[in-house]
Amino acid sequence: MKIAVLGTGMVGNTIGTKLIQLGHEVKMGSRTTTNEKAAKWVGESGANASTGTFADAAAFGELLFNCTSGKGSLEALNLAGTENMKGKVLIDLSNPLDFSKGMPPTLTVCNDNSLGEQIQAAFPDVKVVKTLNTLNCMLMVNPSALGNGDHDIFIGGNDAGAKEQVKDILTNWFGWKNIHDLGDISTSRGVEQWLPLWIRMMVAFGNANFNLKIVR
Amino acid sequence: MKIAVLGTGMVGNTIGTKLIQLGHEVKMGSRTTTNEKAAKWVGESGANASTGTFADAAAFGELLFNCTSGKGSLEALNLAGTENMKGKVLIDLSNPLDFSKGMPPTLTVCNDNSLGEQIQAAFPDVKVVKTLNTLNCMLMVNPSALGNGDHDIFIGGNDAGAKEQVKDILTNWFGWKNIHDLGDISTSRGVEQWLPLWIRMMVAFGNANFNLKIVR
Repeated sequence: MKIAVLGTGMVGNTIGTKLIQLGHEVKMGSRTTTNEKAAKWVGESGANASTGTFADAAAFGELLFNCTSGKGSLEALNLAGTENMKGKVLIDLSNPLDFSKGMPPTLTVCNDNSLGEQIQAAFPDVKVVKTLNTLNCMLMVNPSALGNGDHDIFIGGNDAGAKEQVKDILTNWFGWKNIHDLGDISTSRGVEQWLPLWIRMMVAFGNANFNLKIVR
Repeated sequence: MKIAVLGTGMVGNTIGTKLIQLGHEVKMGSRTTTNEKAAKWVGESGANASTGTFADAAAFGELLFNCTSGKGSLEALNLAGTENMKGKVLIDLSNPLDFSKGMPPTLTVCNDNSLGEQIQAAFPDVKVVKTLNTLNCMLMVNPSALGNGDHDIFIGGNDAGAKEQVKDILTNWFGWKNIHDLGDISTSRGVEQWLPLWIRMMVAFGNANFNLKIVR
């Protein structure tokens, strides 16, 4: 499958590498065509990996992963372009974290809105599915590295078919066993506001190698 | 031990009843001396249960539980009175939830502040310990009712001795096995912002009989 990974940070790198390992063609998008991190990733990832602008990647991908930092997500998606994303599924992993005032970060949007909703509102013809933003990127694509994979993630979005497709990806590509469908894209408020607690735990534990499991 | 339970709702009722079962003397505080819910609770709870104003309860208790609804907590504690609470441990179970605009509620304070911090700032001579606000009140005092008690709560506060006392209460009175000390009272931001996700799960699951476990 042709897939766009928007963003060249740790999350984009980890998702892109996993998708390449699964045999997909991946174009990593960034602001410029000369992004050094993207070029390095392409060099390490073989013939199925390529790079380009956000717009190049969005036009290329049948499926899109938003791995940009939350503060820049809307701008990056504007550069990706409405027409290039139209009708496609956008898996939104972003968190609206603002580190400009130091640790712990605050959220740029929360409580009565969320970045997931802002993205869906800005691009009504894109099928935004919020997931995987609740944990460290190494665990996103390798849940079995922790507790035999018996821990949980969430999914939210307005398009039932898109959510089914993403659940299938999470299950069969990444190995997730426990996926809670919380409802529509407004449930992004819940999973994004999880981050302040996640960060407090990361500080208290001294590492990011943890996740939550819901006991019912 | 003489204990004040501030608040007459489900949380205050559940905490108060558990404390009575453990053999403590409990005074339930409310705005007036004629609160019907408090009177009913006293009638059902035997000789060690009593009721009074927030100030009566705060003066009576060697230990205080804030079980008021978050929107009214600061006002209730002002009525309880600085002098009546001075030097005492206040276990803060409250959540700053605003249901006035319907479901799901928003938070009255979040992101760069929290109710736990507001309470500590308003009453600097009180030892505020935030805990137990992250789950349904039935589970607060009976964790073994779910998953053999193998699920988690958090604790935060500025006074190390007060936190040790509260950990002892959580462990030996209520039966908690897994308590994560997140740090100072500012960690209230994390546990209070968990509520928006908790509420989304409650809606998705159709009940409140769940909790999180941290897998590490």
